[in-house]
Amino acid sequence: MISKYTKNIAALLAISLFCLIGCETPSSPTSETASSSAKDERVVELLKKMSVEDKVGQMTQITLSMLMKDNQLNIEELKNAIINKKVGSILNVNGVPLSLEEWHDLLTTIQDIATKETELQIPILYGIDAIHGTTYTKGSTLFPHNIGMGATRNPALVKASAKITAAETRASGIRWNFDPALGIARQPLWARYEEMYGEATVLSSVLGFEAIRGYEEDGLDQISAVASCMKHYLGYSVPLSGKDRTPAYIPDTQLREIFLPPFEAATLAGSSTVMINSGEINGIPVHGSKYYLTDILRGELGFEGLAVSDWEDIIRLHSRHRIAATPKEAVKIAVNAGVDMSMVPVDYSFFDLLVELVNDGEVPMSRIDEAVYRIVKLKFDLGLFENAYPEEEAIALFGKDAYKEVALNAALESITLLKNDDKTLPLKEGGKVLLMGPAANSKGALHGSWSYTWQGSDENQFPESTITIKQALENRIGAANVISNSTNDFEDPSNTDIAFLKQNAAKARVIILAIGEKSYAESPGGIHDLNLNDNQIMLAKAAYSTGKPVVLLLAQGRPRVISKIVDGADAIVNLYRPASQGAEATMQILYGDVNPSGVLPFSYPRYSGDVVLYDRKHTEEVTEFIPDSYGGGGYNPQWKFGHGLSYTTFTFGEIQLDKKSYTKSDEIKVTVEVSNTGDRAGKVAVDLFVSDLYASVTPSYKKLKKFTKISLEAGESKNVSFTLTADDLSFINAASEKTVEAGEFSVSVGDKKSNFELK
Amino acid sequence: MISKYTKNIAALLAISLFCLIGCETPSSPTSETASSSAKDERVVELLKKMSVEDKVGQMTQITLSMLMKDNQLNIEELKNAIINKKVGSILNVNGVPLSLEEWHDLLTTIQDIATKETELQIPILYGIDAIHGTTYTKGSTLFPHNIGMGATRNPALVKASAKITAAETRASGIRWNFDPALGIARQPLWARYEEMYGEATVLSSVLGFEAIRGYEEDGLDQISAVASCMKHYLGYSVPLSGKDRTPAYIPDTQLREIFLPPFEAATLAGSSTVMINSGEINGIPVHGSKYYLTDILRGELGFEGLAVSDWEDIIRLHSRHRIAATPKEAVKIAVNAGVDMSMVPVDYSFFDLLVELVNDGEVPMSRIDEAVYRIVKLKFDLGLFENAYPEEEAIALFGKDAYKEVALNAALESITLLKNDDKTLPLKEGGKVLLMGPAANSKGALHGSWSYTWQGSDENQFPESTITIKQALENRIGAANVISNSTNDFEDPSNTDIAFLKQNAAKARVIILAIGEKSYAESPGGIHDLNLNDNQIMLAKAAYSTGKPVVLLLAQGRPRVISKIVDGADAIVNLYRPASQGAEATMQILYGDVNPSGVLPFSYPRYSGDVVLYDRKHTEEVTEFIPDSYGGGGYNPQWKFGHGLSYTTFTFGEIQLDKKSYTKSDEIKVTVEVSNTGDRAGKVAVDLFVSDLYASVTPSYKKLKKFTKISLEAGESKNVSFTLTADDLSFINAASEKTVEAGEFSVSVGDKKSNFELK
Repeated sequence: MISKYTKNIAALLAISLFCLIGCETPSSPTSETASSSAKDERVVELLKKMSVEDKVGQMTQITLSMLMKDNQLNIEELKNAIINKKVGSILNVNGVPLSLEEWHDLLTTIQDIATKETELQIPILYGIDAIHGTTYTKGSTLFPHNIGMGATRNPALVKASAKITAAETRASGIRWNFDPALGIARQPLWARYEEMYGEATVLSSVLGFEAIRGYEEDGLDQISAVASCMKHYLGYSVPLSGKDRTPAYIPDTQLREIFLPPFEAATLAGSSTVMINSGEINGIPVHGSKYYLTDILRGELGFEGLAVSDWEDIIRLHSRHRIAATPKEAVKIAVNAGVDMSMVPVDYSFFDLLVELVNDGEVPMSRIDEAVYRIVKLKFDLGLFENAYPEEEAIALFGKDAYKEVALNAALESITLLKNDDKTLPLKEGGKVLLMGPAANSKGALHGSWSYTWQGSDENQFPESTITIKQALENRIGAANVISNSTNDFEDPSNTDIAFLKQNAAKARVIILAIGEKSYAESPGGIHDLNLNDNQIMLAKAAYSTGKPVVLLLAQGRPRVISKIVDGADAIVNLYRPASQGAEATMQILYGDVNPSGVLPFSYPRYSGDVVLYDRKHTEEVTEFIPDSYGGGGYNPQWKFGHGLSYTTFTFGEIQLDKKSYTKSDEIKVTVEVSNTGDRAGKVAVDLFVSDLYASVTPSYKKLKKFTKISLEAGESKNVSFTLTADDLSFINAASEKTVEAGEFSVSVGDKKSNFELK
Repeated sequence: MISKYTKNIAALLAISLFCLIGCETPSSPTSETASSSAKDERVVELLKKMSVEDKVGQMTQITLSMLMKDNQLNIEELKNAIINKKVGSILNVNGVPLSLEEWHDLLTTIQDIATKETELQIPILYGIDAIHGTTYTKGSTLFPHNIGMGATRNPALVKASAKITAAETRASGIRWNFDPALGIARQPLWARYEEMYGEATVLSSVLGFEAIRGYEEDGLDQISAVASCMKHYLGYSVPLSGKDRTPAYIPDTQLREIFLPPFEAATLAGSSTVMINSGEINGIPVHGSKYYLTDILRGELGFEGLAVSDWEDIIRLHSRHRIAATPKEAVKIAVNAGVDMSMVPVDYSFFDLLVELVNDGEVPMSRIDEAVYRIVKLKFDLGLFENAYPEEEAIALFGKDAYKEVALNAALESITLLKNDDKTLPLKEGGKVLLMGPAANSKGALHGSWSYTWQGSDENQFPESTITIKQALENRIGAANVISNSTNDFEDPSNTDIAFLKQNAAKARVIILAIGEKSYAESPGGIHDLNLNDNQIMLAKAAYSTGKPVVLLLAQGRPRVISKIVDGADAIVNLYRPASQGAEATMQILYGDVNPSGVLPFSYPRYSGDVVLYDRKHTEEVTEFIPDSYGGGGYNPQWKFGHGLSYTTFTFGEIQLDKKSYTKSDEIKVTVEVSNTGDRAGKVAVDLFVSDLYASVTPSYKKLKKFTKISLEAGESKNVSFTLTADDLSFINAASEKTVEAGEFSVSVGDKKSNFELK
């Protein structure tokens, strides 16, 4: 059954994508050379030849480190895995990135055994986390993390980045990428916040769609493509405590309205695989839920690809979640619920237990065949049966100069100017700059997670071409004009730095403080307090006390609360995790070569205990009932969702609607004139929000439904048009069904709003 | 239909209540003199005589201030309300507390009009917030707020307090009390946290039950009783943002497992009325939900009493929640959903609109009759038709000396010794004490919300007998020995106080710092950060820098994060809101007259971004998968649920179970020997936790199921026995049904644990 929810997704996405640079009309999910039916026959033929062990082996994924000894591939263990345990998939890297040549050697060795030393000659499906670029290959290009991509409001940049990542990953010999992450960033304590596109669902739906098309649209058998993996299905991004892989509590209505749509869009985009949320929703671990993995994913969304577990998550149904009294019970629950492949990944317990379960009749062969069909089918789709080895012709696609340009543009369009008093920025040339703060000389802080290493914190693993803010500033104004000292310690940059700062401030025309967060990934990035730590606050206050203009640069994966130091700063620039070209992009923004155009993809919280999001309910507004003087509420972030300054000024004309009243089958044409009223060219994000004024479930104050970005010369005006359908006016009702209710609605763009009636 | 959920509540409650002082075997919910059927006939006869306007008037409740002019009762407006608008109920007070005489005058005037100048002569039902004592009558006794009552683990104290409150409220001429609050304290940002019994459901179930019995068990027509009001039904206490009356998101399973049981217990206790949650659950405002107000409350719980809205909440279905496009639609939705009485309370819109709706057939007369039946029935039950006036004989029940003793005992048993290095406490007599901090000379900080005024912050409204910490200390050791200065400013006690502290520390033997929160109630108590404010932190650090022993007293309604000043303190004592006898009780604890026995009814958070509760899931534990070094999780509060030190030491023997294996119909006898191994007598709370080791919904690490408190002489041992039933082993499954699954369980008391099997 194809879901009722997917009906209007095609329309939604086709309309949303105002392609600005190099994006194409979506084609069919895969451009296969052989016909599907012929391929199906080959899969079925192969399945017929497979024993239970062969099948369960295909469903088994282990990690590379299990096959290593003294930092060398352990051939004996590799053969045991592939020949005896019939392992079908391997993932990961042994800590540090490999060169192209090292990857080719490694994969050739692996595929040699799989295709030459086993009876069925099934190639290995190698999977990797190539997150915001080809993470684990030396010299690859890394792009801003998704949170920055959300700030660009530019789907074309997301797609272009994904295409480059696909090419560089495939050039490394790897054809399966565990990307994109489609959670919604609504819990700023969470360490993986930076991997999300933002707090508005439509950002993830549209940008996730583009990423998947970028990865896959050339056809999986082509050297420019990889299989994508929509993740982490479902409800991963909002753990109540903020800690990674801890319980989320999400009512079904919110789950379907806020968290499910990106997976609907990703299914439509043709994502080949899905990775499952390690957490639990309302006490139900997703890995053990037939409701989530089969009823919704297959039944409602119509997803047909391969479902892989996350790290060790099947056994954790026993050891952590405790819904299974034994490891064997855990395997039974997960496989019967709908997991096709187990990222075991450090032993063969899954293989042994599942073989037993199948032989005992506890897991039906039909379920095994379904899973193995999906796995083998993907291997066929990826052309592995034609050529399992790294494709030599793909090497030419690695490390092209043009990739840097895309990375630079993405960083430039993401960087968000939050505050700019008295035109502090752009900086004028001339004079000395005092550059301080723990992010000033840190590559990790500009890159974040999954940057050559898992944690992104090993400064030695970055390519030589990667530079820090300090190096970029020295390149720009000359080393002699840069006064800098940084302990590079995000927890305690205080005393020595403060002393240096006070000693040298008089020599400088301006102080730049690069603060924020060190690099981290997953659980190690857990924090206990959203407030930026006291020592960085003290450093900023020390800078303010000098009387010099102070520019704060924020290198961070999530919005750390800085309300104590906002007022004192002359300018504040959020960099997010701008990656490879981040330092250069920062200079181009600071010195005005490029006009900033990033806008916040989240509500930047003012206080740690006051996280209210842009699509809050009306009961969260300051009203006559709960005046602000009571401290009673209101949407009062440090900066609102969509905030981002420019060096020019933009105005929005009155919103034009083609009618005043619509039926549910009408398209609603919305046009607004955007004008650059300042004195220089610039790009501007245009966010369109819809509000349902009254509804049977309390309506949100507003919801982002469409967005685009346009470029305007000084004095230029352009009309921007959007088309809304009934789907954009829908919500999930108390019975968990998508519904559209007649009544009054409003659309708003910028500071303008217009109402219409739906009959 | 009586709910399946209530089946075992009687057993649960009867077993839980180890009555220590003056509690009796629960009798039937009301001890009426006239038979129910005779009363029913009188109600039905009266209903027959009533017009639509008469009926809707009975459903209308307005606030006293609407009837006031120049601080005097406006007789003309009062007559308009009662005679023309046929108002059936009035609530509240005009800002400040009244004397007994003033209350009697006021109510006599009101009832004169209702019973002598209207055709049907129906008396007015006057309702009041008599929270933690008779809030609005001068000279009344106030008891520790519920959060402190939860710390006592002593149901008898709750019941005794309620009986006194009933007597003093009835003596004031008022027969309906909007108490007790039965939310679960699981959102420490929330301003009403102090009004809850704690984070464990069973605390609210058992203590709420006792409060209701205390209010009502003598019989509503007796001068020692008032009608109670279980509130705020349902899901009020966990607004996501922490702000009062803002949206909660609670999956149905959690709603039924954590938040519903206290209302089941309260229904069993016979609470006469219910007040509805002003908030919304999963986008459904409770005031507009037939599911919550009729299907669950009436259908499943079998509640038969009167359902009153909270302040203005019906019209807010239109103006705030926006599920109704007009005020009229809001009234229709709420009344049809099951609201019997509207706390309108500042106009007659409800009356006018509901009359229209009934006449239009939009609200059926059967629904109106049902509501009015409940209202009039309650008036009969309360004896108002026999005598609507303040009962002169009740005056003797006001202000008895014995009440102070109960208030003192409650404060003494609630105060919780959190830290006591090197036996800093009890303090030795002799020498001077430096007493600082904003709570040192504040009555409001010791009382919190609903203390003679709504906000509890008007120091002039407290009885003369109420003293502050400073006065109590002076009484104890002589004014000459108390060095004190306090700006009484919780936001900025810093500079002058710190200077005074440093100047005078040398003269003192010990420093006592009384810090925490000013008094607040409801929305005005909203905060933006759980961390205690910087200035109080600085004051504490200044105290530590003197090298003198420092005792921190925490006067606060919720656990404010103080991790930055815990290590430096020699002793820390949590006072909660100990109320009338709080200052005296603090001295008796500090100087060791009484051995502290309070234990935390919540997990005291260590960090603002790390709120994990005692009944966390196993996935929130520190494990090999998410080691603590990763910052990845774990139950790591500043102090754990149930923590509380004593001046003696207690040990727990091995847990004795009467069997090793049980069936679901068995009673499970749990016995543990508790020994006082120290050198002085003391009371000790005994908490019994149950853990379901594996279950189809991820089980909690443990759940509090039983608690009691015993007294032990030095060297004495006692056996404590509890009886568990299958209900204590149950949980709500994925289908929202209460279930018990066979398997292994454990029970734990203190540091001991024992496992058993359920077949």
